[in-house]
Amino acid sequence: RIDGKRLWDSLMSMAEIGATPKGGVKRLTLTEVDRAGRDRFRAWCEALGLTVRVDAIGNMFARREGRDPNRLPVLMGSHLDSQPSGGKFDGALGVIAGLEVMRSLNDLGIQTEAPIELVNWTDEEGSRFGHSLMGSGAWAGVYPLEKVYGLQDVEGVSVEQALTAIGYKGEHPAKPFPADAYFELHIEQGPILEKEGRQIGIVTGAQAQVWYDAVVTGQDAHAGTTPPSARRDALVTTARIIDLVDRLMRARGEDGRGTVGQLHVFPNSRNVVPGEVRFSVEFRHPDFAEIEALAADFPRQAEAIARDGGTPLALTELFRLPAQPFDPGCVDLVRQAAAKLGLPAREIVSGAGHDAVYVARSVPTAMIFTPCKDGLSHNEAESIQPEEAEAGCQVLFEAVLARANR
Amino acid sequence: RIDGKRLWDSLMSMAEIGATPKGGVKRLTLTEVDRAGRDRFRAWCEALGLTVRVDAIGNMFARREGRDPNRLPVLMGSHLDSQPSGGKFDGALGVIAGLEVMRSLNDLGIQTEAPIELVNWTDEEGSRFGHSLMGSGAWAGVYPLEKVYGLQDVEGVSVEQALTAIGYKGEHPAKPFPADAYFELHIEQGPILEKEGRQIGIVTGAQAQVWYDAVVTGQDAHAGTTPPSARRDALVTTARIIDLVDRLMRARGEDGRGTVGQLHVFPNSRNVVPGEVRFSVEFRHPDFAEIEALAADFPRQAEAIARDGGTPLALTELFRLPAQPFDPGCVDLVRQAAAKLGLPAREIVSGAGHDAVYVARSVPTAMIFTPCKDGLSHNEAESIQPEEAEAGCQVLFEAVLARANR
Ligand SMILES: NC(=O)NCCC(=O)O
Ligand SMILES: NC(=O)NCCC(=O)O
Repeated sequence: RIDGKRLWDSLMSMAEIGATPKGGVKRLTLTEVDRAGRDRFRAWCEALGLTVRVDAIGNMFARREGRDPNRLPVLMGSHLDSQPSGGKFDGALGVIAGLEVMRSLNDLGIQTEAPIELVNWTDEEGSRFGHSLMGSGAWAGVYPLEKVYGLQDVEGVSVEQALTAIGYKGEHPAKPFPADAYFELHIEQGPILEKEGRQIGIVTGAQAQVWYDAVVTGQDAHAGTTPPSARRDALVTTARIIDLVDRLMRARGEDGRGTVGQLHVFPNSRNVVPGEVRFSVEFRHPDFAEIEALAADFPRQAEAIARDGGTPLALTELFRLPAQPFDPGCVDLVRQAAAKLGLPAREIVSGAGHDAVYVARSVPTAMIFTPCKDGLSHNEAESIQPEEAEAGCQVLFEAVLARANR
Repeated sequence: RIDGKRLWDSLMSMAEIGATPKGGVKRLTLTEVDRAGRDRFRAWCEALGLTVRVDAIGNMFARREGRDPNRLPVLMGSHLDSQPSGGKFDGALGVIAGLEVMRSLNDLGIQTEAPIELVNWTDEEGSRFGHSLMGSGAWAGVYPLEKVYGLQDVEGVSVEQALTAIGYKGEHPAKPFPADAYFELHIEQGPILEKEGRQIGIVTGAQAQVWYDAVVTGQDAHAGTTPPSARRDALVTTARIIDLVDRLMRARGEDGRGTVGQLHVFPNSRNVVPGEVRFSVEFRHPDFAEIEALAADFPRQAEAIARDGGTPLALTELFRLPAQPFDPGCVDLVRQAAAKLGLPAREIVSGAGHDAVYVARSVPTAMIFTPCKDGLSHNEAESIQPEEAEAGCQVLFEAVLARANR
């Protein structure tokens, strides 16, 4: 069995890096804080005798050799980057649990048939450069590397500059290599498992998404002298588009998701009618047909609102992602592990995007969810119980071991 | 007559300080850039033999003595601070025109009966610390000095710290002293004079205003996993309040003004339902009764919207300003000057707040407006013609001279 206390201690140790006063974590991708997290992770891996390699987008692979030189590696992992006001477990759980699997294999003196590789994917969150699942997406070939290198944060720093600055632009090519399977443990980030009292979510796939960048252009004008008829207020138009996003979401019932999460006003002065607003829009749904419908309706309706306000809208679709079913064989290994351990489990579709979604395009993949308190995530108050982390890690251990020795 | 070319050259010289690539000015109050503007202004004044004194809120007074030691000074001036993306003339015109009046008096060897003082008021714009007309308001006793010292910008720097940092926390008390009159030349910042082909606006008073700070509190949550029923989205609520502000403005016709100019989203990440939004709200109207009605209706209706969204609203009224009529005698001097010079003129109510509004509470006051291109202000494209600056300055000269020698 894995060591639950050691797992928890390492989770807490990682959570010190970028710890926020409110008990959360701010470890934005490719920052100095992220570098510190990566360095600690690398040191832990090397202490176990694992060989660490880094690819051109900063993804880290820590390898434990198997007995059979002809077998493809079994992968497991997740991400160490966080939201600007994120929690301790989103991503970190999957990486640190993978580390605990490696430690337990060493402790138990187990040599697996196939090699095992533990992965830390770069920039899963997408909050800094605008593409979630960036590292796994570049690896999977979904985002051309040159395009990804050129993406910039709000300060104009590019992905390539940031990778170089923290010393994690690696020498290995960022592209799929032959692998036998990929398993990712993650917190659910939603309320379902907790509400039903299940310890394990057997993730059968992930929902569809579409993301946009929007810019509304009006005209800066004096708030005191500019009469209603002469105003072209970019923020009033944006407000109506935000309301539209919310209405389009609610029209789809409890399965709908529609969010404006990021927004910047220019010049952002109290007594100036805003001349420009830049903001993000994203929609999600388990059914790709609904996302296709939204990708047709939303731009049309938003542009009509912008036209009414005399404030043109420029909308850029950043990516559109179909729903991704996971590999039945791998999903079944998760189901069997939970059953063997007697853990209450249920099948579930992921509401969040995960690196597993892109890995699944070239490698048989499954995910394991554990509950989190009140379904809260992307929030400093994100919280799980040590027993929940331990149960999830034990399922990961069983599934990976079964696959590597099959 | 004043020297129109010298006036324009000094305007352009001041506009170099904080010049922006788009031809505007960013000379935010109490920054290093503002210090540079103040230093240049002080040097110009001292070169004319004027005595410069600075008060406790950084207002600068440059004095030219009169013949009669018993006469109270005639004041003129405006402000050198700008919006974050402001123009070259908003404020600077009134200060530099006052300087040109002083230079012309020297050139013409005129000794006036009363002394004349040229004023540069601190932080007229209000965009950094949230109180427009801050320096004149503190001087007039409208804002208690201790309260003003404690105001902070978004970075947490206080007014007192900023004053000390740039060396403009002066020794003279910031309070009204006996003065005979105050004249302020300013661009109209609206479209009326230009549309009617008038060179001079005889400003009879300024409209009423009310300003608020608003904070909407929701809950940070994952954009992909949080179903509509579980969301408490602070930005969706804010969007509806922005729409309310616009509707309340338009319900009052062309005299209504309602603006949300500044807004910050937290945590401001693409895939996080926003947990907090902070924003400004302001309303203006020539009739104070309408402002009183808005100050009763808006908080009630905004709170109802916030309640519906499950996202509480905290609203702080920053200030409420009645309409301010100017002194009939001073206004008449402006009218006479325009007539004497044969300049097409009309009476006008100011849509913007001006330092003159607070000065008028203790000193007989009038203002002179000049047209500006397309009525644009609080915009880098703000523009006036050299002849317009010259005409406004000539009216200022005549009015001040007439008052000082009456
Ligand atoms: N798991 C997770 O929070 N991913 C971030 C990408 C997203 O789903 O928005
Ligand atoms: N004149 C001017 O732009 N004043 C700034 C204060 C305001 O009216 O908002």
